[in-house]
Parts: sequence; C-alpha cells; structure tokens
Amino acid sequence: MNQHIDANLPRTSSDSQLDKPNIQKSAVYNIHGLGGSQASLISDGKKSTMDHLREVGPWCRRKYQQVFRKKILYKRVPVLSWLPKYNTDDFVGDLVAGFTVGLTVIPQALAYSSIAGLPAAYGLYGSFLGCFVYIFLGSSKDVPMGPTAIASLLTFQATQGVWQKAVLLCFLSGVVELLMGLFGLGFLIDFVSGPVSSGFTSAAAFIILSSQVKDLLGITAKGNTFVQQWKSIFADIHHTQLGDAVMGFTCIVVLLLMRLLPRLKVGPPDADQQTTLQKIINKTLWLIGTARNAIIVIVCGAIGFAMYTEGQDPPFKMIGDVPSGLPAVQPPPFSIPEVVDEAGVVLQEAQSFGDMFSSLGSMLIVIPLIALLEDIAICKAFADGKSVDATQELIAIGVSNIANSFVQGYPGTGALSRGAVNNASGVRTPFGGLYTGIIVILALLFFTPYFFYIPKAALAAIIIAAVVFMVELRVVKPMWRSKKADLIPGLSCFIACLALPIEYGILVGIGLNILSILYHAARPKIHMDQLITPCGIKYLMLTPDRSLIFPSSDFVRNLINKHGLKNQTPVVIDCTHIYGADFTAAQVIDTLIKDFKSRNQMLLFLNPKPSVCSVFEGAELEYRVFYDMEHLEKAIQEIRRKSFQA
Amino acid sequence: MNQHIDANLPRTSSDSQLDKPNIQKSAVYNIHGLGGSQASLISDGKKSTMDHLREVGPWCRRKYQQVFRKKILYKRVPVLSWLPKYNTDDFVGDLVAGFTVGLTVIPQALAYSSIAGLPAAYGLYGSFLGCFVYIFLGSSKDVPMGPTAIASLLTFQATQGVWQKAVLLCFLSGVVELLMGLFGLGFLIDFVSGPVSSGFTSAAAFIILSSQVKDLLGITAKGNTFVQQWKSIFADIHHTQLGDAVMGFTCIVVLLLMRLLPRLKVGPPDADQQTTLQKIINKTLWLIGTARNAIIVIVCGAIGFAMYTEGQDPPFKMIGDVPSGLPAVQPPPFSIPEVVDEAGVVLQEAQSFGDMFSSLGSMLIVIPLIALLEDIAICKAFADGKSVDATQELIAIGVSNIANSFVQGYPGTGALSRGAVNNASGVRTPFGGLYTGIIVILALLFFTPYFFYIPKAALAAIIIAAVVFMVELRVVKPMWRSKKADLIPGLSCFIACLALPIEYGILVGIGLNILSILYHAARPKIHMDQLITPCGIKYLMLTPDRSLIFPSSDFVRNLINKHGLKNQTPVVIDCTHIYGADFTAAQVIDTLIKDFKSRNQMLLFLNPKPSVCSVFEGAELEYRVFYDMEHLEKAIQEIRRKSFQA
Repeated sequence: MNQHIDANLPRTSSDSQLDKPNIQKSAVYNIHGLGGSQASLISDGKKSTMDHLREVGPWCRRKYQQVFRKKILYKRVPVLSWLPKYNTDDFVGDLVAGFTVGLTVIPQALAYSSIAGLPAAYGLYGSFLGCFVYIFLGSSKDVPMGPTAIASLLTFQATQGVWQKAVLLCFLSGVVELLMGLFGLGFLIDFVSGPVSSGFTSAAAFIILSSQVKDLLGITAKGNTFVQQWKSIFADIHHTQLGDAVMGFTCIVVLLLMRLLPRLKVGPPDADQQTTLQKIINKTLWLIGTARNAIIVIVCGAIGFAMYTEGQDPPFKMIGDVPSGLPAVQPPPFSIPEVVDEAGVVLQEAQSFGDMFSSLGSMLIVIPLIALLEDIAICKAFADGKSVDATQELIAIGVSNIANSFVQGYPGTGALSRGAVNNASGVRTPFGGLYTGIIVILALLFFTPYFFYIPKAALAAIIIAAVVFMVELRVVKPMWRSKKADLIPGLSCFIACLALPIEYGILVGIGLNILSILYHAARPKIHMDQLITPCGIKYLMLTPDRSLIFPSSDFVRNLINKHGLKNQTPVVIDCTHIYGADFTAAQVIDTLIKDFKSRNQMLLFLNPKPSVCSVFEGAELEYRVFYDMEHLEKAIQEIRRKSFQA
Repeated sequence: MNQHIDANLPRTSSDSQLDKPNIQKSAVYNIHGLGGSQASLISDGKKSTMDHLREVGPWCRRKYQQVFRKKILYKRVPVLSWLPKYNTDDFVGDLVAGFTVGLTVIPQALAYSSIAGLPAAYGLYGSFLGCFVYIFLGSSKDVPMGPTAIASLLTFQATQGVWQKAVLLCFLSGVVELLMGLFGLGFLIDFVSGPVSSGFTSAAAFIILSSQVKDLLGITAKGNTFVQQWKSIFADIHHTQLGDAVMGFTCIVVLLLMRLLPRLKVGPPDADQQTTLQKIINKTLWLIGTARNAIIVIVCGAIGFAMYTEGQDPPFKMIGDVPSGLPAVQPPPFSIPEVVDEAGVVLQEAQSFGDMFSSLGSMLIVIPLIALLEDIAICKAFADGKSVDATQELIAIGVSNIANSFVQGYPGTGALSRGAVNNASGVRTPFGGLYTGIIVILALLFFTPYFFYIPKAALAAIIIAAVVFMVELRVVKPMWRSKKADLIPGLSCFIACLALPIEYGILVGIGLNILSILYHAARPKIHMDQLITPCGIKYLMLTPDRSLIFPSSDFVRNLINKHGLKNQTPVVIDCTHIYGADFTAAQVIDTLIKDFKSRNQMLLFLNPKPSVCSVFEGAELEYRVFYDMEHLEKAIQEIRRKSFQA
C-alpha cells in the first residue's frame, strides 16, 4: 500500500462533464432490489445536534414501518386506492367502456377458441371471472383480462386442442405468473428487446393468419409451424368451398372498411365546433367501427339462421352447438380419463398429471412471459408516463388465470386490441371489467343457442382482419435508420418463430439479446488522446467508456499495454466513465501496474470514483490517483525530471 | 422531425471531463471482431491533395494485403518469428529449462495418471508429442504441454478410467479446442471471472487431494464428488496399511521441506556479490528444490527396488508393470470391443462411438474451456505485459491434443507448476519443449523397468504436496476488502464443484457470472442534481452512468418520469456517460419525450455522443440537444419566459 492522493480529494457528488452551478442537492440512485421501483436514496441528511439525532432515529423507523406496511398493502391490492374515491363520472366512463369491450370480447372469444383448437364456448368461459379478479388486483385501468390471439396460439401449440390440458395449462401458468410476481421476476421481460418482441409478434400474426385459412376456405388443414400449416393447406386447397370462401373474403373486406369508419369525421375537426347532429353521427361512426366484430357476427349469424330455418342447408360451415349456461365451477383437471366409444375403441388415452405436465414443457415459462409482455404493452401504452408495476400485473394475471382455470378457461392475459377499445371508450378504473364480465355471463346464459348459426368463415375473417395489423413492418424502416444491428435479433426471431415451434423461436430471440449484452459487457471502447504537458512532455490519455468488470478487464489490460508499448510515453487512465469495478478487474489492474513498473513506464489514474478506489484499495493496489489535470501534468513533469537526474 | 441543435456542434473527439490541452491525435477504438486484438483505428488522416490521395489508396491496399497475409502466417505459425533469430544463448537457456522440466514431468506424469484413473504409462504417452507440436504452434515460451492435475481429474470424471474413452476424449477435446481457435472463441474464458476461477481451482485441489488419500493410506476408495470420495474413504479407513501411510506422510513432509530449499540462500542477497562457491551452493539448493519430485521418486523407487531384490515383500504398494517402449502410433479408438475372460464372462461391454460420445457429454465443452484457462494462466503469468493470443493457444493445444491422441495420450494442456519451473530455469523459446519430449522418450525407452518399484504412496504424496498450494485461500481476504459481492459466485462455484460433479460446478459459477452481467446491464445508476439557472429557475439534471440498451431502458424511463413528476421542474438528461443506445432505447426515449410533452414539462438533452444522436435521429425523435451549460440554461430561461407570457 503506497497510494498517493496528490491533488484535491475526490469530489463526492457531481461527476459530470461540466461545472454545474448552484448544486442544491445531490443523490445517487443505486438500485438494489430486482423488483419494480425500489430506489434507495442516499442523500446528504441535514445536520443537527446529537440530541436531535437520537430522537429522530427511532421515530423515523416507526413511521417508516407504518407507512411501509400500508404502502405495500395499497400497492398489492390497488382497489383500495381508487375505490374510496369512486364517483359518478367514473361510473359512467366504466359502464360505457365495459359494455363496449363486452361487445368486442364475445366475437373475439368465439374466434380465439378456434385458434386454440377448442370448442367456441371455452373462449367465453375464460372471459368473465378473470375480469372480476382483475378489478381487485389490477394496477392498470385499461387491461381487459381474457383470451388473446397470441395466448390462444401458444395454448394450441402446447395442448393441441385437448381441453383438459388447456385448462390445466391455464392453472399452471397462473401459478407460474403468481410466483414470478411474488419473487419479483417481472424484470425478466426487460430482456426481451423491442426488435425481438416485434419479430415474435409479427411471426405470431402470420401463424395465426395461416391457422385461419382453413376455416376461411372451408377445407381441413393442420400443423404447428408456419411451414407445416401451408403444406397442409396446399394439400387440401382443391376442396375449397365456394360458400365459405365468399363469406370469408366478403367479411374481411367489410371489416377492413368498417375499421376506417372512426376516422371519417363529419363537420369541423374540433369537437367543440360540431353541431349536435354532427357529434351524434361521429359517435355512431366510431361505435360501428369499434363494434364491427359484433356487427359482422350478428349479421352473418342472422344469415345462417335465416337459411337454416328456411330448411335450406347454408353453403358454409357454422360453429355448431355451444353448450348453454355457465360452466361448472370445479378444479382444473389434473388427469385425463380414458375415453372409450361404444365399440370399445379407445378415443383418448388416459394421461396422468406427470404426462400432462411434461407435455406442456417449456410453455410453462414461455406463456407467462408472453402473457406479461402483452399485458405490460397495454399498461405502457396508456400509462401517460406513470411507471408500470410489472410485479403487481404478474400477481393480477396470475390469480385471474388460476380463477379462470376453475371455470374451464384457457390461458389469457390483457388483450392489446380490447385494451385500445377500453381506453378509447373512456374507461376510468379497472371497474369497467365488471360490466364486461356481466355481458359475457348474459351471453352464456341467454345467447348460446344463437351462436350455433355463426359461420366459421366469419370468425376466421374477424381474426384475419385483426392480426394483419400485428405484423410490425412499420418498425423495420426506423430500425434500419436508427441501428441496423438491431435488425439481426428481430429478423432472426421472426424467422425462427416461423420455422420452429414458436416457443423455441422466442427463446432464440431472447438468447441473441443476451449474447449481445454479454458481448457489449466484454468489449468496451477505449478512447485515446495523445497529449503534451505545458513543458512539452508527451503522454497518452486512455479513457475506457464503462465499468471494468471481469469479461472486459483482460481486454482492457491488453489494449492499454499495447498502446503503452507502442508509445513509450507516460500513460494516464481517465476513469471518469468507470462507474464500477470488481475483484477480477482489480487483479487485472494490479497486473497492469506491475507490467508498467517492470518497463519503468509511468501509469497514472485520473478521476476514479470513490467506489472504484475502494475496490482497488481492497486489492492492495499501488496506484497514483489525480483529480485534476494541473496536478497530473505537474506530477508527470516531476517524475520525468527525477528519472532524467537519476 | 423537429430537432434543434442550439449550441456548438458536437465535439467530435475528446469527450472527457476536463479540458485536455494540446490534443495531437484522437482516436476511438471500436472493437468489432470477437477474437484477440482486432482493433480498427479510426484516426484523422493527414490532408493531402486529391492527386496524392489517388496514388496512395491502391498502394496502401496492396501493401496492406501483403503485410496482412504475412502477418497472419507469422501469427498462426509463431515458430517462423523466433527460429530465424535463434542463437547460442537461446540454445543454452532452452536446453537447461527443457531438461529441468523433463525431470519434473516424469514423476508428475506417473502421478497424474492415477488421478485420471489410468495406468501410469498413459501419463508419459501424453508428455512428448504435444511438446513437439507446441514448438511450432505455441505462442508462449513458458507453456509445457502435457498432463495436468485438473485435466486428469476431469478426464477421470468423464471416463472413469476406461483408457479408450480417455484417448478418444483427448482427440475430441483437441478437435473442439482447434475449432474454438479457428472460430475465435478464445474470448469465452473472459466470462469466467477471477473469483469463479479461484473457487473452481480450490475445489479441484480438494477433490484431487481426496482422490489420493486412498493411495496414501493403502486402502481402496472411489467416488466422483468430494462427498462420495470421503464417504468411501471412511468406509475403508480401518484397512489403512502402515507401510503406505508411513511412506506417504514422510514423503509429504520431505517434499514440503524441499520446497523451501530454493528460498534458502547463502551469502549476500545480491548475486553479483556472491563468491563462486556460494553461487554453486545456491544453484544446487535451487535445483534440489525444483527437482524434488524426481528425487523423491528415485529415492523411494530405490527403496522399493532394494527391498524387492532382497526377496523381501515391500510393506507398501508399488505402481507395478509399466510397458516398455514407445506407444504404438495409431488412430484414437472410436469404439470399444467386447472383452471376455477365459470363462466367457464379459469384463467390458462393447461400446459404439455414439455410446462413448454421449457418455462424454458436457465434458467436451468443459475440458477445452478449463484447458484454455490453465494454459492462458501461464501465458499471462509470464507475459511481461505483452498481450496473450488466446486464439493461437487454442490452436496449439488443440493440435497437440489431437497429436497426443494418436499415441494414446489423455487430455493435457499447459501445466502451471511446470510452467513456473520452465520460466525459473530460464527458458527462452518454445524450443525447450524438444528436450522435455526427448527426456520423456528416453524414459519410456530405457527406464520403464525401474518404474515398477515406485511406491504408489510416494506418487500420492507428490500430488498432495503440490495441490495444497492450489487452494486459493489467500484471495479471500483481498476479495472481502475489495468487493464482497464477488465472494458469492466464487464461494458458490467452490461449493457446487464439491457437491456436484465438477463440470456442473464450473457451469454454476459461469452461470452466476453471466447473471451478474445481465443484472448490471439491466439496472444502471442515475445520478441526480437539483440545479438553478443564474435567473433562479430550478431544474433537474439526471445523469445515467452507462449505455442505454434494452434491458435498462424501461427502468431508466420510469426513474426519469418519477423524478420529473415529483419535481415538476425542467429535466435535463446529461448523456455524457451514454456511449451507446439501441433501437429499444430510442423507442423508450421517444415515449419519454411524449410523456413529458403531455405534461408540458421541459425535457432537454445535454452532450449526447454522435453515435447516440444517430440512433435517436433514425427513430425520428423530437428532442432538444445542447453541448454546453450556458446555452442550456439560456434555453431553459427562454422557454420558461415564453410559457409565462403565453
């Protein structure tokens, strides 16, 4: 230990490039926890006498504990925060929004069931109880809990249309979500970058679209991956049914046109200057556009009903019997009994819990992750800059899914499309979910007989007209202009999702993301300046751009040694940007110091942070530190002078 | 796109905290490749007329191509660089060092074979051809290619003493090493941090020590993990043989004392002031200390020989028959034939290549990685600040192992203990390996009959007296003082290596290292200052400490929004330390800007690097950038004044 601190002591607060006048308060936020927003503020406390301090300590602790417990409760049961302040405006807003979302969720639930490979009723079963649970636990007003296109696709890929497995998956993924929430693992989605998320969503859109082509054309086809699906479609395309195809394509065109209705506005663009009539027309256009799925289902269902009751066999497939009434409340099936038909042929083999669990495999991780991604996307989209509590959302969707699994729902989450409807309809609290849930229950109780006549092609059209907008082609151009390298993980994830089972595709994307972080950590940049002191002594200033940690420390040592050997001038390492170091780095810097010593070359350190100094001092490094250029250059001249004299 | 650049243009070169006078040359090292030292120098070229430029371009390219090809050849076959300059001094140095290492490697090779669970001859088989190969391909003068304690341990764990598998493992790990070298994957060992490496080495020392206790006590014991080994030892400890134990413990004590001999020096400490006699005595002490293993083996072997030839059965186990002569040159065994004894009982079942390959499993990755770690540790220890070429070392040890597998060697690498002997004996080029190899060949040709009498306990003592110094207790204290958090991966790796099969232990350590990098990348620190402009307008200066990439960008947005909401003053983001950004970060900053806009709160950016600007501009952000405090504060006052007027 022979450490000289030549100049001013380290500046403890501001370390940034320019002199900042009038510093009032300075704090470093050092985040220790993994969860949402646990920031520990290390600030300069006000100075007071010892007596004051002695009183203040315990008081603070008591107060802190009280606030903390209450804060945690309010954070984990958000309904406590908003319900006491609930007013008439909130009621009206939530009622309108909840009703509108209800009109959207019914056709979507019927359609998404077919993506999941399940009878239409299962989508409805998963669309009410979760909404009720979310009222109590949800942290975002805009999230409509229920089945979504992507979750349905993943459910199909995991369960291949066996409803018992789908319901068990709902339960298990709810449990995983809840555990992830309780252990604060919400941060995991931070490792899914924007490009990978876009790649995944776009690929999912293609796969969902492909899965609906068979219903659109009235043929039979199946397959897990995009390639398998299209192979299967082309194998049966000669059986295309004219009725289904006409119905399907007509619906798609109509839906796409209706989607444009809300943008049509009569009268002046400013709502204040519109006449009452103009306002009513605009509102109606918006409502027709928003409820387009419900309208299509009703109109096409009416056509089917009319044809069927006239004794005429409709020229298209209909979804058929939907069992009437609410689902039975029962635990999710933990095993599948053997099903034997009258002739004694085994229709379905018995499966134990172990068989079912192992067949779900990595989906038990992928579904919660993707569910959280979708849910957080809604929260973020309408958060208005407030921070999103991923931990709370995990708890909310976890408990919702567990609840849904008791009424035979399959895995769901917050659906982005309905979230947008919810927000645009003026939802004000999560209470809107109540009305959505009630409408679904009413539908199950009273309207199921009419669902029989809904053409499958119309539902396929609803899905296709929605998912084409999930293909995120629009991000490619800004990504190309902004950072071309980001296209690689995005495109790779897209291709992998189409070529492999989709859960492996997303893992490929996340893997590439993690590799890029590791590479980034291992290969810092070092800025080099050749400088001259006022007395004309040349020296080299090397500025690493980030923290020194193990994967980069050897690399940095080699680079510094290389430049030191090449230039044979004193070398100064500017530690301005080095915010942290670890023991490996300290060992490597130790070797570096010895390397320079053995060459009789000067090695000086400029501006290391106190945290970095403490790591170096712990490892007993002998190093010379300076905190301004003047002292640094004086020292260089002094040492050089002495070495010439010797 | 509505971007204002208010003040000076970005400073293109120096970005560090203080004004640096007399900047001569400025360059940013931006490392693109993954391999050793591919640094692309982006420097300001000298200005010259167009004519000059036109001539210079093609000439540079031709010259560059010539130099580059030659440089690559010299880099990949390092013998070309040093052999033409070989002189008498080199010859003497290499001869002495090679001979000394030869005296060390023979007892080590015999002993390490027992760690690998193989007959003693296999250690010698792997100790000569690799040395010859390394002369041509090796980049470090100090690396003695051959069996090592840790590689022997891993070989045992992978092959359980089946020699065919050990030789195949030598071939396959050689191939993996060569491929890793050719693909530039040497950087992978950067992800093994100092603490994890210490934890692994210490645990390996304990396991090796435990594996030798049975020979030291003359009992039988086996087991893969530390726990299994000691269970097995205690089960048989009552059979301890007095002869073996006395021989073993005596040897350990003698070896530890002999190890101290080189430190004893007669006469004055400065070699120049010593008399010739003093020099001879000192040199002799050093030689005895260095060749202590050979001396112990010879002395104990002589005792065994004397007892045996006197017709007396020695009271200790001896290593027994070592086949005489060089091993046959033949391809490594790609399958194992069935072995049946005379009574028709199957001693060993037939195994196909597939069986053997799959039983080697993850060892095919772990052995090359650990081999490289050991090898690079020698290179670094004696590199004198020169950079170490991990790619070239991988190629060298890979080809050496492939060659060794053709003479029935098992996996080896550079051995740290012999490397130290090599360096201390004054080795000057890799040519020293020639003499080491020749001595091993001579031993195989002429001395194998005498190896019969070497007591097993003496070999166990040699191993134990060496590996106790591999336990890196000494790093714990500086690690504790330097960075306590680094103890976690180190200790976890140590415990995991003892409790689990050792290859999983090292993977646990590397896994923890990677998690810490990911956490580090996801949770940057943000420095906060509350400042006041000269006119008294408060504003907030937030300084993130590192690059904005996807895992941290949402976290940063939340923190900035939180402080913005709390303070309701203009917010300035100081980008001084942000050296890079990706598309996800640009999207998040875009949302952040919109968040602030919707709140009518000012958000300004200070000092972004050009690379960060280009990412933001590509994503079409509307943001206001400043490059000095004066303009920044003026702008804040101006905007504030306008908003008051409005």
